[in-house]
Amino acid sequence: MVDYDDTQLNDVFRALADPTRRAMLADLAAGTRTVSELAAPYAISLAGASKHIQVLERAGLVRREVQGRVHTCRLDAAPLHHGAEWLRHYQRFWTGKLDALEALLKAEDAAVPKRARARTSAA
Amino acid sequence: MVDYDDTQLNDVFRALADPTRRAMLADLAAGTRTVSELAAPYAISLAGASKHIQVLERAGLVRREVQGRVHTCRLDAAPLHHGAEWLRHYQRFWTGKLDALEALLKAEDAAVPKRARARTSAA
Repeated sequence: MVDYDDTQLNDVFRALADPTRRAMLADLAAGTRTVSELAAPYAISLAGASKHIQVLERAGLVRREVQGRVHTCRLDAAPLHHGAEWLRHYQRFWTGKLDALEALLKAEDAAVPKRARARTSAA
Repeated sequence: MVDYDDTQLNDVFRALADPTRRAMLADLAAGTRTVSELAAPYAISLAGASKHIQVLERAGLVRREVQGRVHTCRLDAAPLHHGAEWLRHYQRFWTGKLDALEALLKAEDAAVPKRARARTSAA
């Protein structure tokens, strides 16, 4: 269930542990971006943005193409699938809770008309 | 799509970025564990294990109950759901690829019998 020595999974979750990096991924999900374009929305230096991009690259989430001085980045979402698969093993914990909540709500729904009828006939 | 300032998401992904912590969560998925039980499988000190557990607690993934000197930990998987939901936005990238792969394999499957028939009739 757990790949104890899974370096890629470490790198992916580490990459996702920062809001700027998550926002960069969301940006790249819409299409390729140059490093300057990726850096633009944040109050960080180009060097700071570059460090974030390097973390994303190490996790395999960003591929960079260099043409002269222009570095174009594109999303590679495959490692995210790896992370999602890891999380899927825990899905039963929250779906179980949601199933229980749904059953509770249905039971309440079923009970309400009876009470409503009782009030109507009492009125 | 991205909660830019989502501290819990930062903490959850940070907690998952370490193989010992992921293994501890897998262990807790089977039932409650004392801190000593959680530390036992790893070549780390009790203090080291305790630090990992604190990171998991900060992410809301572990709840600790103290009875005298015994600290019992249990999994709270709800924050993992939060992480899984974030990843779900990127699902289209890999499901798209898988759909394309499936179509390719089906096309190959459809082509193979024709080639097999061609070889049989040539023999």
